[in-house]
Amino acid sequence: MGSDFGPAELVRGAADLSLEAPQIHALVVGDRDAIGETLQETRHSGERISVYHAPSFVSMEEKPAEALALKPDSSISVAAQLVAEGEADALVTAGNTGAAILACARRFNLLPGVRRAALAAVYPTRRSHGEKADPFSLILDVGATVEASADDLVAFAVMGAAYAKVVSQNPNPTVALLSNGTEALKGPACVVEAHQKLQNLPGLRFAGNVEGVDIPKGTVDVIVCDGFVGNVCLKMLEGVHDTVMELAQYAYKSKLRWRAGLAMLSSGIRRLKEVTDWEQYGGAPVLGFDRIFIKAHGRSRARAIANAGKVAAKAVGADLSRRIMEGLPR
Amino acid sequence: MGSDFGPAELVRGAADLSLEAPQIHALVVGDRDAIGETLQETRHSGERISVYHAPSFVSMEEKPAEALALKPDSSISVAAQLVAEGEADALVTAGNTGAAILACARRFNLLPGVRRAALAAVYPTRRSHGEKADPFSLILDVGATVEASADDLVAFAVMGAAYAKVVSQNPNPTVALLSNGTEALKGPACVVEAHQKLQNLPGLRFAGNVEGVDIPKGTVDVIVCDGFVGNVCLKMLEGVHDTVMELAQYAYKSKLRWRAGLAMLSSGIRRLKEVTDWEQYGGAPVLGFDRIFIKAHGRSRARAIANAGKVAAKAVGADLSRRIMEGLPR
Repeated sequence: MGSDFGPAELVRGAADLSLEAPQIHALVVGDRDAIGETLQETRHSGERISVYHAPSFVSMEEKPAEALALKPDSSISVAAQLVAEGEADALVTAGNTGAAILACARRFNLLPGVRRAALAAVYPTRRSHGEKADPFSLILDVGATVEASADDLVAFAVMGAAYAKVVSQNPNPTVALLSNGTEALKGPACVVEAHQKLQNLPGLRFAGNVEGVDIPKGTVDVIVCDGFVGNVCLKMLEGVHDTVMELAQYAYKSKLRWRAGLAMLSSGIRRLKEVTDWEQYGGAPVLGFDRIFIKAHGRSRARAIANAGKVAAKAVGADLSRRIMEGLPR
Repeated sequence: MGSDFGPAELVRGAADLSLEAPQIHALVVGDRDAIGETLQETRHSGERISVYHAPSFVSMEEKPAEALALKPDSSISVAAQLVAEGEADALVTAGNTGAAILACARRFNLLPGVRRAALAAVYPTRRSHGEKADPFSLILDVGATVEASADDLVAFAVMGAAYAKVVSQNPNPTVALLSNGTEALKGPACVVEAHQKLQNLPGLRFAGNVEGVDIPKGTVDVIVCDGFVGNVCLKMLEGVHDTVMELAQYAYKSKLRWRAGLAMLSSGIRRLKEVTDWEQYGGAPVLGFDRIFIKAHGRSRARAIANAGKVAAKAVGADLSRRIMEGLPR
């Protein structure tokens, strides 16, 4: 209900899923009239979609804790409750991120051995990854846990590796800690301690520390950091495309041939922006809970929602939670 | 002595300074024979250059603490000692960063009210800044102080603002804290506490928190963070140009017109790389000591060294240290 384009895109995504993915049943939670209206004018398979009414919703602008307190029957609260009770196996939302994480944190349990959840982001890189040679890496946490301990970082590494195996079809992903130098002793105390622990963790392909330059390069498959650093990095990546293009114009303004080249590219610039917009790719998993939870971007269209649904189904089918628990230190 | 191109580029930079900047006297510290050889074949004003012999030097690959212990008469140790004793007013080096900071930290004093030094970096942004409308912002710390307290961040804000005033000719620079959201309560405890303190600090134009997306945009003139986050961000900026260009090729490979546009730009790509290479612009100031200290990049050519010398002279002439002390909380 609270996504940037309202409920219609979510409903259309569920409708696409009902036709494309017969193994998935979509339970659509929100205003029953709005949902019904879109469903009526969209081709779908009625057997694989059901609707659960929620009379209110949290908007993007609202403060998470306040909004959830004021609206106990908001669509995100109702949906999280349904998943917690086992009425559904996974939650997909394109609404207010903070409210979604809070609603789930109050109803889901953290996996045994996990003390903090992490929001992971898929983002484009120069190097390709996994069996499908995707030009994408995973970075976590990007905002759920602002101050992470060494044990939290170790858990994030295990969660990221498990997700890369299950969803990115990368059977043996490389995992690294983000630091200010590649040496084991570089970084704040929690990073140094996490480095030691990860070196001795069986079943994880730990590649040591990587630096900022390795984020866009894609040196490793999974990058681990606390939610503060990860959030700053991710938001930098978002702004970087525009900046390079503007700086390019600044650098090239003097030379006619360069200007002509830029002009020829101008219609492609929007396309590049899409490629570098990590949030178009199936959404960001929130890892650490005993339930699967995919946060799609607020600007998601039907296609992105359907992709997020498939990602969620893949994670459920491959028992992501069990895989995470198996990888955690004993 | 230890820069990527050896002493000749430094000597040529000093030679340029002797002709262009009559107010500056360059004291060149290093191997007297190597220095003399370059001086002999370079046009310079002999009155404004003198040479001080140092029999050894620290290379880029050496570990700072070990190297300084093994070589007490290395050029960086001798130069730092000369500046500490008042034989020179400022230090400019293009050698090993860690060794330079350590050599100075052992000989210079921190300014009263400053508990940690900060390495600041000038980097290119979309928005222009100051009276000269430079497309550059300042970010600090980028690696000197990996874990910073709230008071350290406040001192960094004051130091960055003073530097922007003196060197970037920006009489009233905006200063912001880097965080994971613009609200005052966003971020780790030290950032939240620093936010409160900066709001109440007279004489500073505090713009609140900025996010990662604001770094390349250049939303403010000075961005403040701890050395861990700053180092990660700065290294990301360094890798970003190559990444965008490679992703562009990935995005554009299907369309002939876009490919032609990229080809026309190819000779300009190197040029853009220069523009976005912050380290070409007069070097990075190390702030917080009672002596002026400019760390030029290891790849600096004569031009960059001469610029770093002028920046150092400007900082000395405008009494940067006094300005920093005046801005600190009482």
